Amino acid sequence: MIIIGEKINGTLAGVREAIEQRDAESITRLATSQADAGADYIDVNVGTGTGDEAGSMEWALEVVRNATDKPVSLDSSDPAVLMKGLELCGESRPFINSANGELSKTECILPLAAEYNCPIVALPMDESGIPDTPEGRLEICHRILESAGRWGVPESDLFFDPLVIPVSTEHRQGRLTLDTLSIIKSELPGVSTVLGLSNISFGLPKRSLLNRSLLTMAIFVGLDAVFMDPTDAGLRAALRAAEVVAGDDEFCRRYLKAYRQDELK
Amino acid sequence: MIIIGEKINGTLAGVREAIEQRDAESITRLATSQADAGADYIDVNVGTGTGDEAGSMEWALEVVRNATDKPVSLDSSDPAVLMKGLELCGESRPFINSANGELSKTECILPLAAEYNCPIVALPMDESGIPDTPEGRLEICHRILESAGRWGVPESDLFFDPLVIPVSTEHRQGRLTLDTLSIIKSELPGVSTVLGLSNISFGLPKRSLLNRSLLTMAIFVGLDAVFMDPTDAGLRAALRAAEVVAGDDEFCRRYLKAYRQDELK
Repeated sequence: MIIIGEKINGTLAGVREAIEQRDAESITRLATSQADAGADYIDVNVGTGTGDEAGSMEWALEVVRNATDKPVSLDSSDPAVLMKGLELCGESRPFINSANGELSKTECILPLAAEYNCPIVALPMDESGIPDTPEGRLEICHRILESAGRWGVPESDLFFDPLVIPVSTEHRQGRLTLDTLSIIKSELPGVSTVLGLSNISFGLPKRSLLNRSLLTMAIFVGLDAVFMDPTDAGLRAALRAAEVVAGDDEFCRRYLKAYRQDELK
Repeated sequence: MIIIGEKINGTLAGVREAIEQRDAESITRLATSQADAGADYIDVNVGTGTGDEAGSMEWALEVVRNATDKPVSLDSSDPAVLMKGLELCGESRPFINSANGELSKTECILPLAAEYNCPIVALPMDESGIPDTPEGRLEICHRILESAGRWGVPESDLFFDPLVIPVSTEHRQGRLTLDTLSIIKSELPGVSTVLGLSNISFGLPKRSLLNRSLLTMAIFVGLDAVFMDPTDAGLRAALRAAEVVAGDDEFCRRYLKAYRQDELK
């Protein structure tokens, strides 16, 4: 499982201020704590809604790269910001994540993935919105895959996100996400998959319980990568246990190692 | 989800002594604590390996029925013990559970299920042992189903257990259990399903984490009933969260109720 630490996000109150005030110490702490907790990538979203986002990205990337040698996930809905990020760290193969962008943006970002040879988060939504069936979402995945082929982006660099809508808005949204993940895995076996976990629990109490549950089920279905809070010890423990039960941890090696390191909370 | 409390089990050290010494207080405590924690049934296994099991069953059933009005699950590999139990409480429709019995026992117990009109735990194993593929286990389920039809046992009273073998013995056992559950759900939609949860984690540390993980995945696949420790607060919370994410908890009602009662640990 590829873990992408989600905590450097300019839409969160404390982080927004750190970005606006160029508080390198806070951003460093967010980067190192996530890296120490097992993040494989550090997501960097500096969209605070005000100010010079490209300038903020340049600043934040320098801070993060001084803090850890983990590659980043460039998270912006603005192509100019993504390009600035790719110029600065394209050789480390960052994730390109325009997951919070406007509809139908994925296909517009494919040329960047091709030019910089980077993995990209691909969203099954278009100008009509987000289809409310797994089949509808799969159809858009097929279109993106076809387009990626024309740009020469390899299938395995496409990380399809089945999309997570909070269960507080409608109780079948978790099932819809998982059924979409399942149909992507079976119909497009060559692509990769990713989930933005915490959206599932928006508006509900004890969010980590719901996040753990979705991650556990998604691991059973075959998820490849996840945006999550790696500093959530309960969530990390659920991940290790789920890999065991799903048959992805031979001899329970990772689980037992985590136990010996007093990591299973 | 039908919760069957598994804690009154004569193979466990403390419980064995309570049964041998006719310690009604201990058995009462095990019954009430499980009922209070949400058990729908109380499993009663008085097989201590020594003494008069039918006599112990009679004694234990009286203790449990004085402690709670929850129906029981009669758990024995000895048909005479099951019959004694059914005579005493057949009208309350106990579960018939010969899950720990000899191979191919399920078909021999069907007449009891027919006579007393009770739900029964059905195991996909036969004189050759436990098949190591979902398809092999499904084939035995088909045979049991056919036999049940001849006895007039309704499909929905057959609770097929896909069988749980500890992941510590072989790392794909969890996946095999879940794939078997999945194929039973899709090929035999009229029957019910049940899991003996805690076997998955035998021999490993932090067992509750693995039990939670299997329960979460099984709820996603469509499990109907579970043998578990209902007094494990973390496991109960995982169950509530899994029902939300799997789309089985409209308006998150049960989850939010559990939260208000400070039940989500």
